[in-house]
Amino acid sequence: MKILVANPNSSTIVTEVIARSAKRKIINPNTQIIPMNNSRGTENIDCGFADYQSSWSLIREILQKVEEEKVDAVVLAGFGNVGIFALKEALSIPVLSISETSQTIACLMGHKYTVLTAMKQNIPLQEDLVRLFRLEGKCASIRAIDINVEKCVTEKDKVLQRLKEEITKIVEEDGAEVVILSCGGLCGYDEELQKLVGLPVIDPVTVTVKMAEMMVETGLCHSKKRKFANPPQPLAEYF
Amino acid sequence: MKILVANPNSSTIVTEVIARSAKRKIINPNTQIIPMNNSRGTENIDCGFADYQSSWSLIREILQKVEEEKVDAVVLAGFGNVGIFALKEALSIPVLSISETSQTIACLMGHKYTVLTAMKQNIPLQEDLVRLFRLEGKCASIRAIDINVEKCVTEKDKVLQRLKEEITKIVEEDGAEVVILSCGGLCGYDEELQKLVGLPVIDPVTVTVKMAEMMVETGLCHSKKRKFANPPQPLAEYF
Amino acid sequence: MKILVANPNSSTIVTEVIARSAKRKIINPNTQIIPMNNSRGTENIDCGFADYQSSWSLIREILQKVEEEKVDAVVLAGFGNVGIFALKEALSIPVLSISETSQTIACLMGHKYTVLTAMKQNIPLQEDLVRLFRLEGKCASIRAIDINVEKCVTEKDKVLQRLKEEITKIVEEDGAEVVILSCGGLCGYDEELQKLVGLPVIDPVTVTVKMAEMMVETGLCHSKKRKFANPPQPLAEYF
Amino acid sequence: MKILVANPNSSTIVTEVIARSAKRKIINPNTQIIPMNNSRGTENIDCGFADYQSSWSLIREILQKVEEEKVDAVVLAGFGNVGIFALKEALSIPVLSISETSQTIACLMGHKYTVLTAMKQNIPLQEDLVRLFRLEGKCASIRAIDINVEKCVTEKDKVLQRLKEEITKIVEEDGAEVVILSCGGLCGYDEELQKLVGLPVIDPVTVTVKMAEMMVETGLCHSKKRKFANPPQPLAEYF
Amino acid sequence: MKILVANPNSSTIVTEVIARSAKRKIINPNTQIIPMNNSRGTENIDCGFADYQSSWSLIREILQKVEEEKVDAVVLAGFGNVGIFALKEALSIPVLSISETSQTIACLMGHKYTVLTAMKQNIPLQEDLVRLFRLEGKCASIRAIDINVEKCVTEKDKVLQRLKEEITKIVEEDGAEVVILSCGGLCGYDEELQKLVGLPVIDPVTVTVKMAEMMVETGLCHSKKRKFANPPQPLAEYF
Amino acid sequence: MKILVANPNSSTIVTEVIARSAKRKIINPNTQIIPMNNSRGTENIDCGFADYQSSWSLIREILQKVEEEKVDAVVLAGFGNVGIFALKEALSIPVLSISETSQTIACLMGHKYTVLTAMKQNIPLQEDLVRLFRLEGKCASIRAIDINVEKCVTEKDKVLQRLKEEITKIVEEDGAEVVILSCGGLCGYDEELQKLVGLPVIDPVTVTVKMAEMMVETGLCHSKKRKFANPPQPLAEYF
Repeated sequence: MKILVANPNSSTIVTEVIARSAKRKIINPNTQIIPMNNSRGTENIDCGFADYQSSWSLIREILQKVEEEKVDAVVLAGFGNVGIFALKEALSIPVLSISETSQTIACLMGHKYTVLTAMKQNIPLQEDLVRLFRLEGKCASIRAIDINVEKCVTEKDKVLQRLKEEITKIVEEDGAEVVILSCGGLCGYDEELQKLVGLPVIDPVTVTVKMAEMMVETGLCHSKKRKFANPPQPLAEYF
Repeated sequence: MKILVANPNSSTIVTEVIARSAKRKIINPNTQIIPMNNSRGTENIDCGFADYQSSWSLIREILQKVEEEKVDAVVLAGFGNVGIFALKEALSIPVLSISETSQTIACLMGHKYTVLTAMKQNIPLQEDLVRLFRLEGKCASIRAIDINVEKCVTEKDKVLQRLKEEITKIVEEDGAEVVILSCGGLCGYDEELQKLVGLPVIDPVTVTVKMAEMMVETGLCHSKKRKFANPPQPLAEYF
Repeated sequence: MKILVANPNSSTIVTEVIARSAKRKIINPNTQIIPMNNSRGTENIDCGFADYQSSWSLIREILQKVEEEKVDAVVLAGFGNVGIFALKEALSIPVLSISETSQTIACLMGHKYTVLTAMKQNIPLQEDLVRLFRLEGKCASIRAIDINVEKCVTEKDKVLQRLKEEITKIVEEDGAEVVILSCGGLCGYDEELQKLVGLPVIDPVTVTVKMAEMMVETGLCHSKKRKFANPPQPLAEYF
Repeated sequence: MKILVANPNSSTIVTEVIARSAKRKIINPNTQIIPMNNSRGTENIDCGFADYQSSWSLIREILQKVEEEKVDAVVLAGFGNVGIFALKEALSIPVLSISETSQTIACLMGHKYTVLTAMKQNIPLQEDLVRLFRLEGKCASIRAIDINVEKCVTEKDKVLQRLKEEITKIVEEDGAEVVILSCGGLCGYDEELQKLVGLPVIDPVTVTVKMAEMMVETGLCHSKKRKFANPPQPLAEYF
Repeated sequence: MKILVANPNSSTIVTEVIARSAKRKIINPNTQIIPMNNSRGTENIDCGFADYQSSWSLIREILQKVEEEKVDAVVLAGFGNVGIFALKEALSIPVLSISETSQTIACLMGHKYTVLTAMKQNIPLQEDLVRLFRLEGKCASIRAIDINVEKCVTEKDKVLQRLKEEITKIVEEDGAEVVILSCGGLCGYDEELQKLVGLPVIDPVTVTVKMAEMMVETGLCHSKKRKFANPPQPLAEYF
Repeated sequence: MKILVANPNSSTIVTEVIARSAKRKIINPNTQIIPMNNSRGTENIDCGFADYQSSWSLIREILQKVEEEKVDAVVLAGFGNVGIFALKEALSIPVLSISETSQTIACLMGHKYTVLTAMKQNIPLQEDLVRLFRLEGKCASIRAIDINVEKCVTEKDKVLQRLKEEITKIVEEDGAEVVILSCGGLCGYDEELQKLVGLPVIDPVTVTVKMAEMMVETGLCHSKKRKFANPPQPLAEYF
């Protein structure tokens, strides 16, 4: 089974980080992770503007890779919208966004969950996503540590401290008990943090790849009736 | 890995049907399905009253089996409440209800989903469950074919006809595109029906067992803070 | 008129406290309060697990008492679920939960109300109940003083102090103006507290018994169509 | 105990009908019903415009009557808004609207209820009221038989027939099982209709008067903090 | 084009303040603002009680003025309900409430908006209005500076300071980014405040008058079907 | 004042139709409409896939035109998402989507409104937009006449007939009284239809252009704090 894991931005470092998370929990020797980056995308998808300027080429590259590599499922490894619904229209194999999938799995793990991101500016966009995924009833809050992505990678102690602070508020003030780390820069903090705070901390890439694997094994795919029906014209007409 | 699949009622025939659905998509040779029936439960959990008269012993038998068999995850194979939250309090391994899990997975497969059950009387109880799972935004409707569980098993042609009729309404009137067959009597209709109607039809047992397998592989479990914290007294005090 | 007031746990002390609250405002000399405790239940229903381990026997004992005593209405004097919907299925006389009824009456008394309980762990379960009762629009918050039931009874000054503190926040932060004391240990604090804080504080047992009396006098009962229809089998089949 | 039952319009015939419903279920010999009509109001409050042109004088007359008669509670016997919240601000004795109170009691009697009124034009106004009372979760639908108030009184067979038709749809299409007759012209149809359709049909005047009686007996009143605080100026300043 | 701008209270000083806001942004030389005060209304509409005691005469005076002056649109310059829906029933020209209109325009200007008023007691009434306008999804919060209307006019520095404080919380705590000044006493603070806080501050009178102008120019009016259909009787019957 | 009216697709015929609607109600001689088409976009934005493949270039062309022409406001004349939020991030002049703006104005014109579109496949996407705009409380339904865009232009009689049929259902079944024609092919049907059905029918382009004019005249713009803050990098970095 081949799972394409697409990084929506052009950073090869981020693609590597994502690939590492993707492979962490794979047990089946027949499952193959194919990482991909979006060569024509921006370095960083840090706002709604970046999303629209990067996702069109992301979608095209994914379609091409799906064709070439005969992949069985696609994981869209971006924490924003990045065209998830558009891609589900175009394909008839499982297409999973790490944002939608991790929130869906979190539903099973607690009364309510919190999405924890890096920058405050990102919060309204994340709120829009929760509404698009129709999960308002389960999402207690969206919080930010207000440390930018670069510093998330370099200043580990400070980041851990801030994450811990916010997670305390999640439990005390928001009434949540499950945390999703919703930013590329926060990849890899999950295990240490989980020990520190005593509640489940989800790495969205890891769980989404596993979900993709499971969907392929069971033959599940999104419905091709109504919302994700094929585009009315042949795909090439839209390029 | 051992997954306990617990039938909440006492019918051994139903336990067999469930076991068959549970094993259908298992690929990993190390995954072992352990079916269990609730010997002190009612033959059929067909109302809220039956739920309360059966679940207390179900929970006790599951706890005993978990202990004896050292299982890694529990699948609660009932379409009602059957004490799902109570059991999550008592255990620190994944506990998945087929009702909650199948609805959660359906979230990823379409704009909205429909729960299709056998008897009309069951609809308000299912509506309560959707509210408990906080998935109102994704559940378009709950529909019933109004054929009792026994006839569901024996009158296959009639049942298929009625299922098809309701599914047409689901798409036309309710705006849904994914179907969950939420009744023991409807187990086994999914594949034939899916071909007939052209939209995904989910067998809740099959997908929940796969989700349990995936949670064990990734080390995920429900949060033990807040809602599913251990009961304040030792479990034995409650018996 | 005979009103059965059922304590869902096995503590006879609690049954006495409940009986006292039940009788406080009875004026009609023909109204008779019949207290009952759940001899096979747990000492304390302090979590969802306790609820499922106690309610099955509670329901059976209530049904027996209803039969023997020819009671006219049942008051379920537990602050959790304790099988309220199951019991409404089984009976065709008014069955009122103190939790549902006190919240319903609070609707008439203010813009929004707050449920004030003893332990924080209880909050998600209370949130589930509000959703089951479909009263989210009126319930501003659920708060806990985080003092356990035993201390609630013995450390009166501290408890009053903590209740007063939380009620200030209810008005200032949550925008509520009516308080429901939702814990057995808080029975009896209502009148003193009401004077202290200047807003209505409801004793759920007292108001529910009065509502039961009123329903019997007017001939009202829950609908026996749909949700609370009789169980499909004779009740004895479920034991 | 004295309960003022105020008809918001000027029709003495309607006042008599209301008084009859008010007295039907009174058992306590000390409870005295004081009917009142709004002499300066319109003959019929059949739209939002009529509500604003009638309620100001209604409120003034009620305040005068409360003073003169030393009443213990006020029942506002109008199916619209008719200044219910304004009156709660002005008074520190229970003030109950038949619309709000009957819907609140219906919450306890079924999964969902339906408000059944005479004219279709009234439906959006009733929807506004449900939102003001914050009971959207319990109100399944608002339906009208589209027969005007006069004919409701004179053409009994036709009205019963139409009521029965709509109630069938309430159960089949809206998923409700309790009916509130929300129009003066429908007073008196409840008992016959209840037998005919087999589900509870509520006469709002009857149950609200009983609730007022119960609130006086228990010493309950709406909160005078926040929403229903006394107007900042002495009342006379507003006339 | 003639736009009637009706002050719902009897204060001529407030009418002047409103007229000034109304004219501020008028560019079209053919647009004429006709201010009006409610001579029989209260000096101040500071609660729900005042609303019902003032709005009946307000409506009558507006209808008379519309007739006499042949106006093209009506702006209801009150921050409460003041009979907005009743007036829409009575008229077939645009009728715009400054409360509803300013909130509607704010929808376009940010993710969420906040209504900022003078007195805390007003908050529940404003919450009711948001529900009547069905804009809960866009209204992040309603806040008060707790300074009365008179002091709002005289103690400018203190008011600015308090407004600034609350607006900081609006952004930090409520997740809003647009502010509506919803109190007559706060008229005229918008421009200075906007510079001070760096986010849009809306003067409801100014924007509503412009919206009225635009509706007249495009020939738009509220629907006269269903909710705002003409009252069933000739208007004079209701006086 | 210059208002850029951007057609998100590449069809020059559609751009002309839009331009005509845009100019219909302009009275101010200083207002200048600048039509623009998206030369690199698809011919038709008929699904979510088309949206993502067209909007990136649309945004770039708009930014360039804003720069060159020194426009005062932008109207995004597409019935889908077409990057509305992304563009609001990039610009500090009013940016109005015809979809969001027409729905916002409809809020003022009735109890609830309906969005009427051409193709059924479009309904879930329109539902997503209503959620993004947070107007669920006002949108009664989204309906489609199921006639494709080309036939909408050529088969006028059939289209009028189908529109009339759906609008009857809007009033009878959905409880709405205002209609928004949400498809390019339906431009120009509004006036004839309005006469035919007797309720307001909104041409989204016309009203949005007038709203843009009004925002420029009053100096209003979306908030540049939080959601629509400038992208963190200079815009050129994202191309």
